Amino acid sequence: MTQPVPPPCPFEKRFPSQLVRDDVFFMSLAYNQAIDAWRADEVPIGAVIALDGEVIAAAHNTVEGAHDPTAHAEMLALTQAAAAIGDWRLEGCTLYVTKEPCPMCAGAIVHCRIRRVIFGCRDPRGGAAGGFINLLQQPTLNHASEVTPGVLEEESIHLLKTFFHEARVKKKSGFSE
Amino acid sequence: MTQPVPPPCPFEKRFPSQLVRDDVFFMSLAYNQAIDAWRADEVPIGAVIALDGEVIAAAHNTVEGAHDPTAHAEMLALTQAAAAIGDWRLEGCTLYVTKEPCPMCAGAIVHCRIRRVIFGCRDPRGGAAGGFINLLQQPTLNHASEVTPGVLEEESIHLLKTFFHEARVKKKSGFSE
Repeated sequence: MTQPVPPPCPFEKRFPSQLVRDDVFFMSLAYNQAIDAWRADEVPIGAVIALDGEVIAAAHNTVEGAHDPTAHAEMLALTQAAAAIGDWRLEGCTLYVTKEPCPMCAGAIVHCRIRRVIFGCRDPRGGAAGGFINLLQQPTLNHASEVTPGVLEEESIHLLKTFFHEARVKKKSGFSE
Repeated sequence: MTQPVPPPCPFEKRFPSQLVRDDVFFMSLAYNQAIDAWRADEVPIGAVIALDGEVIAAAHNTVEGAHDPTAHAEMLALTQAAAAIGDWRLEGCTLYVTKEPCPMCAGAIVHCRIRRVIFGCRDPRGGAAGGFINLLQQPTLNHASEVTPGVLEEESIHLLKTFFHEARVKKKSGFSE
């Protein structure tokens, strides 16, 4: 029996200049991770962690493939980054993610003491970085991160909306099991 | 060079009757996981997941040993349970944990659609099951769990307080690196 082949991702990766290492540069790499997620038939969300201008972790959502709802891009990137620098305290690090972190990921970001969090599209119902709550700047918790929303916002929204639209079409047409 | 030997845990495991499979029974098993955490020189928090009266996952905090701040007892138990039943939707499951879940763990519990959450001691500053927020019963999220606080509360508090007291004494005496 052959595996059903997921439809190809209609979006292309971004190729930002290596010379300008600003928030758009790193978010472009997170966006590319999201494209990889789509190509693996996962919800297209990607994350990158940078330290001193270098990428120390890059991951995408693998919830479906890993059968693990905790396998969000941010969680995987945090664990990768901790392994990369040999310390779970990611104090000087910046996390870039294409969608506003959920409560689970925001909670993990606080535990890791990430300095800055940059995200693409907002999630008013499920987002925990200013959406329905801001866990990244919660006075009773023992760490707060700087938060910058809206970097590559349109591109990140477009990617997610198109993915979910195609998933609905696929389901209706009986492509999905 | 010899490894420093952590001081022994002064608490004993509980041996509940196998015949009465109530919340105290399963919380006793979570408590025993917390004892195992202490014996591994980890903050003593334990978790168990039960389905149809059987334990399908049991884990304790391994943050220090794994150098991973996401390695909370609940996170490990959720991943274990998902692997055990081959589905990340843990809809009929009950999670027992000796301390109120943090936002990260509460967020993961919501993703996994855990039916009931039973916890031991409350955490007014960092807890996300009614402490500073209740993410387990958040109207905008797509799942809510039943919550029962305070099972083996005194025992769980005593364990944690004693652990942190001894850790402070150890630090002052220069035992810790």
